[in-house]
Amino acid sequence: MRNIFKIEEVKAHCDVPCGIYDPSTAQIAALSVIRMVDLMEGLDKSDSLGYVNTITRHVKVKEEEAEKVKHEIRIIWGDFIKPPQIEQFPEIHTIVHNIMMLGSHVRQHVSREKSVELLQEVNKFAQIFWQIKGVETKTVKAPYAPNEEVVIPVL
Amino acid sequence: MRNIFKIEEVKAHCDVPCGIYDPSTAQIAALSVIRMVDLMEGLDKSDSLGYVNTITRHVKVKEEEAEKVKHEIRIIWGDFIKPPQIEQFPEIHTIVHNIMMLGSHVRQHVSREKSVELLQEVNKFAQIFWQIKGVETKTVKAPYAPNEEVVIPVL
Amino acid sequence: MRNIFKIEEVKAHCDVPCGIYDPSTAQIAALSVIRMVDLMEGLDKSDSLGYVNTITRHVKVKEEEAEKVKHEIRIIWGDFIKPPQIEQFPEIHTIVHNIMMLGSHVRQHVSREKSVELLQEVNKFAQIFWQIKGVETKTVKAPYAPNEEVVIPVL
Amino acid sequence: MRNIFKIEEVKAHCDVPCGIYDPSTAQIAALSVIRMVDLMEGLDKSDSLGYVNTITRHVKVKEEEAEKVKHEIRIIWGDFIKPPQIEQFPEIHTIVHNIMMLGSHVRQHVSREKSVELLQEVNKFAQIFWQIKGVETKTVKAPYAPNEEVVIPVL
Amino acid sequence: MRNIFKIEEVKAHCDVPCGIYDPSTAQIAALSVIRMVDLMEGLDKSDSLGYVNTITRHVKVKEEEAEKVKHEIRIIWGDFIKPPQIEQFPEIHTIVHNIMMLGSHVRQHVSREKSVELLQEVNKFAQIFWQIKGVETKTVKAPYAPNEEVVIPVL
Amino acid sequence: MRNIFKIEEVKAHCDVPCGIYDPSTAQIAALSVIRMVDLMEGLDKSDSLGYVNTITRHVKVKEEEAEKVKHEIRIIWGDFIKPPQIEQFPEIHTIVHNIMMLGSHVRQHVSREKSVELLQEVNKFAQIFWQIKGVETKTVKAPYAPNEEVVIPVL
Repeated sequence: MRNIFKIEEVKAHCDVPCGIYDPSTAQIAALSVIRMVDLMEGLDKSDSLGYVNTITRHVKVKEEEAEKVKHEIRIIWGDFIKPPQIEQFPEIHTIVHNIMMLGSHVRQHVSREKSVELLQEVNKFAQIFWQIKGVETKTVKAPYAPNEEVVIPVL
Repeated sequence: MRNIFKIEEVKAHCDVPCGIYDPSTAQIAALSVIRMVDLMEGLDKSDSLGYVNTITRHVKVKEEEAEKVKHEIRIIWGDFIKPPQIEQFPEIHTIVHNIMMLGSHVRQHVSREKSVELLQEVNKFAQIFWQIKGVETKTVKAPYAPNEEVVIPVL
Repeated sequence: MRNIFKIEEVKAHCDVPCGIYDPSTAQIAALSVIRMVDLMEGLDKSDSLGYVNTITRHVKVKEEEAEKVKHEIRIIWGDFIKPPQIEQFPEIHTIVHNIMMLGSHVRQHVSREKSVELLQEVNKFAQIFWQIKGVETKTVKAPYAPNEEVVIPVL
Repeated sequence: MRNIFKIEEVKAHCDVPCGIYDPSTAQIAALSVIRMVDLMEGLDKSDSLGYVNTITRHVKVKEEEAEKVKHEIRIIWGDFIKPPQIEQFPEIHTIVHNIMMLGSHVRQHVSREKSVELLQEVNKFAQIFWQIKGVETKTVKAPYAPNEEVVIPVL
Repeated sequence: MRNIFKIEEVKAHCDVPCGIYDPSTAQIAALSVIRMVDLMEGLDKSDSLGYVNTITRHVKVKEEEAEKVKHEIRIIWGDFIKPPQIEQFPEIHTIVHNIMMLGSHVRQHVSREKSVELLQEVNKFAQIFWQIKGVETKTVKAPYAPNEEVVIPVL
Repeated sequence: MRNIFKIEEVKAHCDVPCGIYDPSTAQIAALSVIRMVDLMEGLDKSDSLGYVNTITRHVKVKEEEAEKVKHEIRIIWGDFIKPPQIEQFPEIHTIVHNIMMLGSHVRQHVSREKSVELLQEVNKFAQIFWQIKGVETKTVKAPYAPNEEVVIPVL
């Protein structure tokens, strides 16, 4: 594949709009997927209207948040990650593709295990992202349920 | 005005979905508004297609980000802030209303001053939000342009 | 809280776009929420595909209409209601916040009582809106199910 | 063309969801298109950022409101108007098609004349709609700029 | 009804944007509706979370695809079909209206029969569309489930 | 990177929903981007309202169509392309990433050359897609402006 972006390589990730890329939106969305799974699994099954209403809404939010993970990561991957960064982090395509597959998997199923894997892949992506930006990171527990670990910049 | 939410008061902000509220999305959006203003003011005026294309896109992104600020804050205010919190922080309604007015102002104009004010009001809201959650905060410079100060939780 | 909109106060609600504010959209949406609750409660519970299809769609429409109520009221409150109007109608913040809380409640539950309360709060808001515009109002039954009372301008 | 909806004919416009059809949303949107044209024509041409920002936003709102007219009318036409009503009002297809063509025209141009024609066609549709519902109508001036005439039900 | 588009008649379907109209998007969406019905009918009924998750998603996709059929056809009908084409194909209004009614029917029910009828009406529309463009058509089986017949241009 | 989808590998691209993947939507969108560039470059520059209205709309359509290209390709790549296909077509990640970069480039600029490159990359993707499905392809001129070549299945 010939390199179609030779010119951009020099200035790297600085196109207009250089934009404000921040993986935290995708991380919050991945946490929300896990949270929805937890809530769905905690519900007493019933055929009452209240149950049907709640479960339908949880599925919908899970859908939206998983889609948001995929959309946000696609934007950063497509706009911020350029050939020089790919050379530096050749695993980035696989991580992003994993996020896409996991994002679909957690929409299609109600799986805590795969939802946590989704968050973990997003954290790997965030780790690389901040490394490219030259910002140190640390791993902390999210300050709200499901309190899973997220990689955040040290500011 | 009678209190229509007497029952909820006891368990406060714990409705299903308790949700994952995080003012960072609104803060990132407010930073993006400032960034768009900076980019718009830095452009050489011209009637070239490139200029028209760029300026139109900047206006659109500014619109969307300002709307996102308003939408995100409205959700947290409407779903997380309940009567007990209002009693504790009676200024919350005015802060939120200011955010709505400023959010419209920065859509209608290209004003760095008002965009920064918008971010400041969102920071005030974030400050109160984390205080309610019992999480300490600090003020840091955002790790990307426009590098304005944001209030974040100490995790 | 300092007044951040001193200049606008003089010309009040006349920014470009002065816009065409009309609470009727929010009122129609609130009626639709009640209608959905009525339809949901009237369904024979079953596990047939037809039932599942219908109930899922009703939940979705209820979600969308409740969200529309909140969005439309937020717009009028944020863009049309300025400090002079707040001074004149100091209860407006509480009415709007009630609409936000009730709007979430009727999404989270299937409750005719709360849906009617939502419409009533929206009617209060409409009453104040038309009073600000100097237009008289009357209370009429909506010309379609659920035929609840709505406050409309006398034209 | 064979009649594919023989069964529905008996109960006519009463499918679930019978829904809450109200042409007022389309009428408000048509008024908004006229309003945008008026605002656009009233602007002093300039190359200032403020002008570019405003004109871009006006085009966008005009787009959205014209689209809303088309979408709302399509819904009522497709869901509420059934073969018996078409027999009674054979001109309905032409009115709806005119609304579609005019809706596109006012998006593609800045034309007060065509925008008013759009509103007039929507009023014709509203007139027929309320006649089908057995509700009398009257023609009044809208209570906000552009103060054009709209057909409303007598409630 | 007077002819409101006398001037356009001469140049027919060549307004800016003449656009790129292609009924294939509506045809793919109609195929997707049939596919969803097939998948829904093939599921083992159960009250497990997995089933609820799947069935809710299928209903949602069916909704969206049926809506897409209606939206895409409305655009081509409103923007591409002008009075001269209506004179040539006077049945076009009825076909489009049938698509609207069938599009709502397949949202409201889980019906393979009606979903296939929807595709057939969309095929009729595609047939006329390509005839207007002067492009020959043929009928082929879609290269993916549900493998129903679609009318495509001979290119 | 460990293989997180070992189980799926056996049944490959057959998850529910196996879905109806068709790259034609992305191809039509890529053609639309080229068309918009052609229309924009053909306009007489002016400061008239008509010009501003048209150019703003063209930028918006170009944005939307370029986004649609990226979104549609991301879906097929994420849901249909699984590890076995990646092994067979190891260049797929680079093609998809190129589409993302080119999709952003044609939003940020008005460039016929890059728009055509975008279509070409989408054609490469379509070529691989149909090869995986075991369907032969041919290259034809699109039956509408801009009449560029597209890879389509032989049906």
